[in-house]
Amino acid sequence: MDVFSWPVRVYYEDTDTAGVVYYANYLRFMERARTEWLRSLGFEQDELMRDPGVVFAVRSVSVDYLMPARFNDALEITAAVSSVRAVSLVVEHEVRRLDDGDVSVLARGNARLACLDADSFRPAAFPEKLLEAVVRVS
Amino acid sequence: MDVFSWPVRVYYEDTDTAGVVYYANYLRFMERARTEWLRSLGFEQDELMRDPGVVFAVRSVSVDYLMPARFNDALEITAAVSSVRAVSLVVEHEVRRLDDGDVSVLARGNARLACLDADSFRPAAFPEKLLEAVVRVS
Amino acid sequence: MDVFSWPVRVYYEDTDTAGVVYYANYLRFMERARTEWLRSLGFEQDELMRDPGVVFAVRSVSVDYLMPARFNDALEITAAVSSVRAVSLVVEHEVRRLDDGDVSVLARGNARLACLDADSFRPAAFPEKLLEAVVRVS
Amino acid sequence: MDVFSWPVRVYYEDTDTAGVVYYANYLRFMERARTEWLRSLGFEQDELMRDPGVVFAVRSVSVDYLMPARFNDALEITAAVSSVRAVSLVVEHEVRRLDDGDVSVLARGNARLACLDADSFRPAAFPEKLLEAVVRVS
Repeated sequence: MDVFSWPVRVYYEDTDTAGVVYYANYLRFMERARTEWLRSLGFEQDELMRDPGVVFAVRSVSVDYLMPARFNDALEITAAVSSVRAVSLVVEHEVRRLDDGDVSVLARGNARLACLDADSFRPAAFPEKLLEAVVRVS
Repeated sequence: MDVFSWPVRVYYEDTDTAGVVYYANYLRFMERARTEWLRSLGFEQDELMRDPGVVFAVRSVSVDYLMPARFNDALEITAAVSSVRAVSLVVEHEVRRLDDGDVSVLARGNARLACLDADSFRPAAFPEKLLEAVVRVS
Repeated sequence: MDVFSWPVRVYYEDTDTAGVVYYANYLRFMERARTEWLRSLGFEQDELMRDPGVVFAVRSVSVDYLMPARFNDALEITAAVSSVRAVSLVVEHEVRRLDDGDVSVLARGNARLACLDADSFRPAAFPEKLLEAVVRVS
Repeated sequence: MDVFSWPVRVYYEDTDTAGVVYYANYLRFMERARTEWLRSLGFEQDELMRDPGVVFAVRSVSVDYLMPARFNDALEITAAVSSVRAVSLVVEHEVRRLDDGDVSVLARGNARLACLDADSFRPAAFPEKLLEAVVRVS
């Protein structure tokens, strides 16, 4: 099955004075891909915040930076779940660029997500339907 | 009376691929100065959010960019109120850099603030003590 | 003629603890729209940086914040030139959201752009073709 | 020996609609601490960029998020080198908050840095004096 991917264009806001995308901004790109991947599965995070009243918190993150992305690059950010448990999901990401017909992987990373009660920030179970949908595509 | 000013160092995160501070980030610097100016007058915004339950919203902003700030620059951001009314405050800012003993003004801007109920986001009166403190220094 | 507009989705990265889009981030959205508007006219800023060696710098900006944008909102950012001169362009923006079939204008702003030599940062003439294209759509 | 630490105040710009510091922004805080730690050792990155013409690039990063930081928190970000080699340095960070006299560790992370030629972005040796200074404090 094809992995989910989301297009991200690099704007001035994303770059730094070394001429490349600032390292923290890859985490913003990865979260955009996670959000759009969940949306593609039918889950809107603002609705989940109200009913059943949960938010997703990143427990840990790691990124390997392989090649720099630059201003005006047209990137694709993938999102695929690699581990599903009652209390945490691990989502894997690649930051890719199409160079002369070849795909270059500019960065690889992953984020471990927990489900929290939106008010108390205490651990909560992931919504059953979300787990089912995520397992189905993984 | 000396105008309030707050030091801001320019880090990689603040710059862009043109080698200068990204234009939106001056608004971040100005808000840091406003927050620290309010703190210097005895007002903590997280406490005001709980009691009396108000937040400050920016209604309008304008900035003139005169000279670029660059990576590693040591800036000073001023904050001074220029207009105080029951429903809005205007705060004036300068972004300054000391160059060989001379002060260079890199940008000038202002923000018009309204006071809102933290829950309903409806207009609310500025806390009386804050207005008094602000008038005293303006 | 229809005004150019560019879709922007509001992610967590764009919001703040008051539950709304942070005020500086509207400037990021407006620049995305300007960049895509120039691209739609056939101009890529990374190419212009190399040949003829120019960058566009924002000389001044102003924004009126009318209604808050929130997490997960699907926005449209317009871009239209309101003034064209040899040394500066003014671009007008609206931040819009479709609410139950009606268009809500959440913010209005404009940016005055100058053309600079990419190396010296000295004023330069806007590329002739760009001025022609911009005048044609304004 | 005391570990280097740098104060960071949490402003609106750092938070998100969940009421906590946005996860990517911890990387910005960690880089501020690295920059100030290098400065405390006598190294200014803008000077190193010109002579001997090197920049530091993050090769990989990982962060464990333990407890959320919130608006207006006064944080301390530590920086300490854990591994020094000719081609890469690993810097360890903690994000700390003083809570009623106790130190809470909100996040732990590390970044592996490489030294690059500022123009070609090819691997370069770390400046000898920097390695000596870094080994001395580690």
